[in-house]
Amino acid sequence: MALDPKLRDDIIAAVDKSFDAQIKFTQDMVRHVSTRGNEHTMQDFMFRAMQSRGYTMERFEMDREALARHPGSGAWDDLHSHAPVVVGIHRPREEKGRSLILQGHVDVVPEGPVNMWATPPYEPVIDGDWMQGRGAGDMKAGCASNIFALDALKSLGLQPAATVYLQSVVEEESTGDGALMTHLRGYRAQAALVSEPSAETLTRANIGVIWFQLEVRGVPVHVQRMGTGANAIDAAYRVIGELRELEKDWNQKKGDSEYFRNIEKPVNLNIGKIAGGDWASSVPSWCKVDCRISILPGTNVEVAKREIVDRVAAFTRGDAFLSNIPPTITFNGFQAEGFVLKPGSDAEAVLGRAHESVFGKRLETVTSLAYLDSRVYVLFDDIPALNYGAISRGVHGFDEGVNLPSLKKVTTAAALFIAEWCGVEKIAD
Amino acid sequence: MALDPKLRDDIIAAVDKSFDAQIKFTQDMVRHVSTRGNEHTMQDFMFRAMQSRGYTMERFEMDREALARHPGSGAWDDLHSHAPVVVGIHRPREEKGRSLILQGHVDVVPEGPVNMWATPPYEPVIDGDWMQGRGAGDMKAGCASNIFALDALKSLGLQPAATVYLQSVVEEESTGDGALMTHLRGYRAQAALVSEPSAETLTRANIGVIWFQLEVRGVPVHVQRMGTGANAIDAAYRVIGELRELEKDWNQKKGDSEYFRNIEKPVNLNIGKIAGGDWASSVPSWCKVDCRISILPGTNVEVAKREIVDRVAAFTRGDAFLSNIPPTITFNGFQAEGFVLKPGSDAEAVLGRAHESVFGKRLETVTSLAYLDSRVYVLFDDIPALNYGAISRGVHGFDEGVNLPSLKKVTTAAALFIAEWCGVEKIAD
Repeated sequence: MALDPKLRDDIIAAVDKSFDAQIKFTQDMVRHVSTRGNEHTMQDFMFRAMQSRGYTMERFEMDREALARHPGSGAWDDLHSHAPVVVGIHRPREEKGRSLILQGHVDVVPEGPVNMWATPPYEPVIDGDWMQGRGAGDMKAGCASNIFALDALKSLGLQPAATVYLQSVVEEESTGDGALMTHLRGYRAQAALVSEPSAETLTRANIGVIWFQLEVRGVPVHVQRMGTGANAIDAAYRVIGELRELEKDWNQKKGDSEYFRNIEKPVNLNIGKIAGGDWASSVPSWCKVDCRISILPGTNVEVAKREIVDRVAAFTRGDAFLSNIPPTITFNGFQAEGFVLKPGSDAEAVLGRAHESVFGKRLETVTSLAYLDSRVYVLFDDIPALNYGAISRGVHGFDEGVNLPSLKKVTTAAALFIAEWCGVEKIAD
Repeated sequence: MALDPKLRDDIIAAVDKSFDAQIKFTQDMVRHVSTRGNEHTMQDFMFRAMQSRGYTMERFEMDREALARHPGSGAWDDLHSHAPVVVGIHRPREEKGRSLILQGHVDVVPEGPVNMWATPPYEPVIDGDWMQGRGAGDMKAGCASNIFALDALKSLGLQPAATVYLQSVVEEESTGDGALMTHLRGYRAQAALVSEPSAETLTRANIGVIWFQLEVRGVPVHVQRMGTGANAIDAAYRVIGELRELEKDWNQKKGDSEYFRNIEKPVNLNIGKIAGGDWASSVPSWCKVDCRISILPGTNVEVAKREIVDRVAAFTRGDAFLSNIPPTITFNGFQAEGFVLKPGSDAEAVLGRAHESVFGKRLETVTSLAYLDSRVYVLFDDIPALNYGAISRGVHGFDEGVNLPSLKKVTTAAALFIAEWCGVEKIAD
């Protein structure tokens, strides 16, 4: 049932009216250097922002043991964040509509070499249609959008006529444990809206992601006695060559996946970080390589991990240098399966109507090749999780930004979606 | 003129008698963690050791400007040591013999991962015939040997009948600027003995060494949008592939070098250290690779550097990713030519006799593929520089050690060499 046209227009106007405040809020978020493990003040900011709006607040630690028991958790190592998960709870006067999770993550990836940015990464700069800064796109603009979509209703004297959980999580860029923790804590709703910067599209299907670290050790010698290949860095690159073969093999299975078969190369192995050796004139004795590989939906994580380990082991046995000290593979982050958002849900239909009201055209669905927290709600809550947000640029790169006109539109669409999905009721005097 | 047999036997006995003290002195040296830039206390120890023995002491800073004007200096960067050079000067009562430089370096290469050592790297452990520890072989045992060879004469009431400079330098493992600084300071003698661990052989010819850092930059993107090869780490490895071709080309010229043509692969490119990227799920935007390549004697350093730069530039132009942001090559350490020790010098003959007295066999000459400070004395002082020292193991690697019976023998040979080369005189009452 479509929204009343008057209410629709009121919501559109309300989002527009508070958009300057939404921009300022987003800028305040970007100023927090909330890289992995450093999200404490950012989460306190989110806690206060929701508390001041009257939400019932819960803040909880990640439960390492509970996570470890769940097959969807990441590998917990020394780099794992200890920042809490923050949830603002809205309970209606009367539970008439459908409940909803509004989710966003506040952790950001490292900014990289600062001199490759046109402006300081944690100083949000607005230039024309863009706000630039690390996390502006991925996904602080989305976190703010969740809050301001509800604010728009409130400014009209309205609130959702169903329970809404405003979830602010961490660890989205490394394990997905923040989102999983909300599931383990017992939060459940009939749909979820995750406001990742999806470029005004709905994510239909999403790749799974596995992280691992390859470590090669070797007995070094003075460079004067170096033999061909007896070098941990060179040896690591030989292993990488074999992993590229595995990547090829996995891509050849794309035909089995409806939403991936038309993508040229859905499975990507990223050699994200490397460190090795101590001295230019010493043959390096060690090399560590941080890798990220994706798996097609339906691929079991444990099976994929076993395949990685077996391939490396088989390659190692045939390599004169590596066979002496076989490299180790440590799974150290995401161990996450992909998902497909089943077409035809009511939630998708409601978002589609909201989107059309704002954009005047159909909501397109796309396949994503990046990890998304939505997987938790699709795979483990078995609910429609709608990954939907603004146009961004430079995500995980330099001069990251969010497109502000796009942000206003998707915030409006989110507010319309909430109003129709949850229904609205008057705020009690 | 061979030494008097009585004197020879006395010297052999004297070195033997003080060898326990020599071992202890070497152990004390190994306990100093004198990696690059951290040689201050080590040099103070050497200063005090020579001063207490009555040498006239000089200690001087490295003169950056003077070094920069000299073609044999290394590239001075932030990692360059500021530790002083220490020289102990012996002047005879009567200048009758031939003057001599006794040289050693106290800097050591990094120990690497400590857990790959059987014993703590800076705790000198004696096990059977070996003393183990970083720098025990390369070349603290040699530094101590220089001092104890003179001590042996002194214990007989004798001293060299010529000026002897006991030089303790730094930067041998990175630029060779310490040795060059002694030259720039004006120290000159008729021969030099450098007690590197040459396994009881004399170094006839020595490779030149150039250090450089390759840096690749690129515009990173989220791994979901990675294209083939648009990855700074992968791109760096493609450049390394091209540098391996250059290495091959340079090795093909080995026929021109009398002392290198029978070595299978005299020119070695070492990929010594690598660092790149910030995050497993971000396509890396940067990669730095520390390289060391050798050049055959007679190859001009500037010509070789130009060839490296040109080869990388040409390769870059043909690479879709690299051509956008060409990598940089920074020369950041050794810029040192190789040398050939001319056969037939008196100094070599004297060392040959000393060696035969101790070992009962001819002194063998070998070609070295590692940088040696001796190049300063051969190339710029135009004197015979004898690179001669003990048997070692694990140099630039793990469980580095010096063979103690070998050390005693080469110390004895050094003492005999000094006695014959400089002549001896009675110490004044």
